[in-house]
This record gives sequence, C-alpha cells and structure tokens, in this order.
Amino acid sequence: MPAQTEFRAIEWTDAGLRLLDQRLLPAREEYLQVIDAPGAAQAIRDLVVRGAPAIGITAAYAVVLSAQQHLQAASTDWRPAVERDIQTLAAARPTAVNLVWALQRMRAALEQAGTRPVTALLATAQAIHEEDIQANRRMGDAGANLISQGDSVLTYCNTGSLATGGYGTALGVVRSAHAAGKLDRVYAGETRPWLQGARLTAWELVRDGIPVTLITDNAAAFLMQQGKVQWVITGADRVAANGDVINKIGTYQLAVACRYHGVKMMVVAPLSTLDMAMPDGQQVVIEERPASEILTLAGQPVAASGATAWNPVFDVTPAALVDYLVTEAGVVFAPDREKLQGLAGQRHKAG
Amino acid sequence: MPAQTEFRAIEWTDAGLRLLDQRLLPAREEYLQVIDAPGAAQAIRDLVVRGAPAIGITAAYAVVLSAQQHLQAASTDWRPAVERDIQTLAAARPTAVNLVWALQRMRAALEQAGTRPVTALLATAQAIHEEDIQANRRMGDAGANLISQGDSVLTYCNTGSLATGGYGTALGVVRSAHAAGKLDRVYAGETRPWLQGARLTAWELVRDGIPVTLITDNAAAFLMQQGKVQWVITGADRVAANGDVINKIGTYQLAVACRYHGVKMMVVAPLSTLDMAMPDGQQVVIEERPASEILTLAGQPVAASGATAWNPVFDVTPAALVDYLVTEAGVVFAPDREKLQGLAGQRHKAG
Repeated sequence: MPAQTEFRAIEWTDAGLRLLDQRLLPAREEYLQVIDAPGAAQAIRDLVVRGAPAIGITAAYAVVLSAQQHLQAASTDWRPAVERDIQTLAAARPTAVNLVWALQRMRAALEQAGTRPVTALLATAQAIHEEDIQANRRMGDAGANLISQGDSVLTYCNTGSLATGGYGTALGVVRSAHAAGKLDRVYAGETRPWLQGARLTAWELVRDGIPVTLITDNAAAFLMQQGKVQWVITGADRVAANGDVINKIGTYQLAVACRYHGVKMMVVAPLSTLDMAMPDGQQVVIEERPASEILTLAGQPVAASGATAWNPVFDVTPAALVDYLVTEAGVVFAPDREKLQGLAGQRHKAG
Repeated sequence: MPAQTEFRAIEWTDAGLRLLDQRLLPAREEYLQVIDAPGAAQAIRDLVVRGAPAIGITAAYAVVLSAQQHLQAASTDWRPAVERDIQTLAAARPTAVNLVWALQRMRAALEQAGTRPVTALLATAQAIHEEDIQANRRMGDAGANLISQGDSVLTYCNTGSLATGGYGTALGVVRSAHAAGKLDRVYAGETRPWLQGARLTAWELVRDGIPVTLITDNAAAFLMQQGKVQWVITGADRVAANGDVINKIGTYQLAVACRYHGVKMMVVAPLSTLDMAMPDGQQVVIEERPASEILTLAGQPVAASGATAWNPVFDVTPAALVDYLVTEAGVVFAPDREKLQGLAGQRHKAG
C-alpha cells in the first residue's frame, strides 16, 4: 500500500483551491479551480466535494479565499464581508457538523489575526487539513486493531481520501487492516442514489490495489446471512451527544441487519464530527434532495411520469446499534452519553 | 380503478405469443412476437418477461408453439421434439418454481391430448393464464382484508400485471386495498440493479391512477423508523415446504427490518409457487447474474475497472420472519410446515 494515495481531492494552490470533481469519477479525473467562497459553497452544494471532513476542510480554505478577495477589494471593511461568506458556507449543507466546526475555528483565527491575516488563516486551514489526515491515520490503526485475522468487511458510501483530508475514516480502517494483511475480502455497498460506493470507493480501492467486491444495497442482509462479513464499517456525518449516528441513508438499515446477524458495527469519525450540543439524533433535521435523483438515471427518466420519490440523504442510527465508535482519541465500545462526554474532553488535546 | 389494467404483458395471438418487452419500460412500450419455444426461453433468460407467474404462463404458451411447429414439420415423431423444448424452457431460469409447475401441467396435457393436440394444449395454457388472474383477484381481496383503514405500505420489485397473468400478487393486494379506499400511501422500493420497482411498478400504478412514492432500497428501514409504513408486501419466486420464501434480492433485508420495527410482512403468492419438494429455503441454489449489471449503468461503466461485484438475484427469507402468506386458497398467519401442508392439499381444488 502506498504511504499516501497519490491523488489529492482538496489542494491549496497559488491559484486558489483545487477540488477533484467527484461527480465525474470514475469516468474522468477533472479538477475544479475555486476562486472565492461562494464558488466553494456552490461546489459543496453540487457535490463536487462531499464527505463530512472534506466539506469542513474545503470551507476552511474558502475562508482564506474570502479574506484574500475582500482585503484586496476594500482596505477597511473586509471583516463583515468575510463573515457573510462564512455564513454562506455554513448553509451550504445542513448535516455535516464538521462544516460548522471548521468555520468556527476559522472565525476564531480571523478574530486573532494580526497584520497578516491571510497567512494566519491559511495556516489554520492547513492545520485543519493536516490534523484530519493525522486523525484518519490514528483511527485507521485503532480500527484495524479491532479486526481479527481473516475477517471480511462491508463498507458503505465513500469515506476515503475523497471524503476527508486524505486516507479516510472507515476506509482508513480498511486501508490499515489491509496493510496489516488481516482482511479476507472487502465488500462495498453501491450507495444509491449517488452510487458513492460504486463510483468513488471502488475507484480508491482499485488505485490502492485493494480488491473490492461491490454489492447492491439490498444485498447486505443476505451477505450477512451467508456469513460472508464480520464487520460493517461506516463513517458519520454527525454524532450526537448520546452516540446516535447521523450518516448516509442506508447506514441505519445496515446497523439493524448487523444486530440481527451478530455482525459488528464500527463507526469511524473524527472528534470534529461530535455534536455535543445535539442531545440525540432525533433532533436532527434530515436533508432531503430532489426526487429527480431517484426518478432519473444518467439524465433519462427511469420511472413513469407521475411517480414521486422520497429522497432523504441521511438517516439516524441509535447509539444502541453501534458496537464501536472509533475516534482519533481512542475507541469507544457501546457508545453512550457518558463515554462521549469523556471523548469531547479530548477534543482540544487531539486538535 | 379499472376492472383490468389495459395492457396485456402476455397475449396469445394468431401470429404466436406476444410479449411486452419489459426491458424497455417505461420509456417505450414495444411488443416482441415469439414464434417458437427457444425464442420464448431466450425471452425469459433476457428478462423480456419476468416474474414467477408470468414466466410460467409464457412457458405454457411456448409449449403450444412447440407443438404447432413440430406437428407441421414431422408427422410422426413430434412428441420428443416438444419434450426437448420443454426441457429448454425449464432451464431458462432456475429459481421460479411456477415455470416447472406450468410445464408439468403442459406435459400432462400433452400426454392426454387426442386428435387435436394443439387445441388441447392451447386450452390448458389459457386455463393456466386465466386461473392465475383469478387467483390474483382472490389474493388481492384476501390481502386487502388484512390492511387497516389509513395504513401505508411498501411494496418491492414488480409483482403486478407485468409479473403475472394480470392484476398481480403483492401489487394485486395494493390494487384491491386502494380500490377499497384503505391506503394512505404506497411506497415502492426501486429494486436494484434492474430497478423493477422504478421502471415497472411505478408505471403500472401511475396507469391505474394509484399515487406512488419511490424510495431507494437503502431507505426502507428509515421509512419504518419514521412510522411511515405499517406493511411490507412482496411476492415470491418460490415458497419452500416450511414456509421459507425465495424472492428478489432485498426481500430478506426488508423482512429483517420489518421484524425490528414491528412492521408486518405479507408475502403474496399463488399455490403454484409452493415447492413442497423443497424442505426449506436453504436448499435452493441462488441464481447469480453478471457483475456487469452492477458495474455499469445505462451501458456505461460506473465503477472503476478492476472492481468486481456479487450479484445474487434472490435471497431466502426464513418463514419465521413472514407474518402472513396470502394464497388463492386463503391467508396463513405465521406460515410453517404443517400449515403449508394443508395449503398444498388445496392445490387441485384451487386450480
């Protein structure tokens, strides 16, 4: 396994922020140059970049772009303009708490910035990015430690280098476990309707030389019934204070099937994903995307005109169905409110 | 609701057997004229026609075509040629037991056929077709009786007029319950990878004026968690002697989610679907179709080259997860070996 996957989904360049356009993968590897914060917000809304940690990092760099732009344009009144951009970015996608968390760090850096604010902001954004990669590596190793020799795993959606600063959360665990020679097989759920599993996870794993077998999302329980997997490993878009996990639609269904079959459910998420202000997952408003994502396929109608669709993007997995929560501050077995309180206390230490 | 949906997916005509090409729906409504048994077997293999009862009816008509052809070609030795065609048809798809059952009836008719074998065989095929429609209507009413006023249901794959002689099994229950004014909402699972729910079920329901909301297969458990459905209603490709249900991949996952949420699971299948020779569902060899059905989308690669896929077409739902089995001979609560023995005894009476 290469020490680092070669592509960079998010990269700061002299010309601005460069994003790998994930909508075109695996057919085309094209990059989008983002030059201002509204452009970054649009890229987040349009799923050019997705994945909770990656969205946070993108937003952090977008604040640097904002400061650059407004400092150049107006000598005095640039801070309110940056604050407006921060609010636009925060509203780009409602579920990923990393977005709010990263913007909060950037806002703090902005308030403390001295004579060279762009340099200070860029340093903070780069720190957020670098810390995420380091957190992923720690989580990858910690998660891999839980896996027994010869286990097979099912992963879901895309939680790899494309969804994070690099390496990945759940996919980081897959990478570390594969590097340790522990894994028999890696299955990936295709993840309708956007097919992040088929389009993105398979692409990352093939590039890393890790064999991957795709399944349709409806085959997961049958896979478990056949004894083909011992683990389901997913990321999280938000973890509530009681350990409830908000993640890609389908995660909850996998967790229910895991419990029924005695397959272990591992959720891998950096501390920036914890939302201690949300008591439990039932508080979250689940983002719904257009019905057209289900009613059409490759731009063509797939369902008869007149049919409607319900397209929630996330679901809520109660903490009681999560066997392990893996963070960069350590592994929590059977997460609950008390254990998460302890974890949240590590947040400053860990980054 | 119209007394009968206007299209006929399977129709005997003077020119042979006319099949609605279900691969093209809902974009195009085209019919395929089948003129011999190998052509019918090919149509079954290629999914021009699918659905356990529809496959059985198609095969029955194909035996008529076979007798016509071989009687014209050779005056004496036509029966072995028909028998060879019967064997080709039986092998066209391995899972649907209705196929074997219908061919067995046609073989018996062939043995008893006198001076006008084609007329006799056609009468048997038409009886199989007509009895299926009548069975569907009885099952539709029996299943609808179980449903409470204001319930919402999730159905899966396509079990309607397209999958049967007409009216449908699980979708027949939806039709009858809708006609009785009982249903609040009808949800349909899209059913990857062939999207029978999106392409076929939505098309049938829209034509019947029954509002339908599609969901991705991974959203079913979340739908249940939100209290949006009280029933999952599916068909069956085969029911083993102990009540285990072999049906479209994903049925088992729905059944697991039903049990977890206290949502009721109703399986609707004519007696021709019972396989009393199969002690339980673990005996069945699950058909696997090409990985390309998952690795490509609308003819284009969707996953990176090098990825593989596991594409089982069916799965096995243990009888213990089935709340109601609805047949034309009546409703069985919590099906088991003893109750199914009683049902099988009704088979001759019922048709």
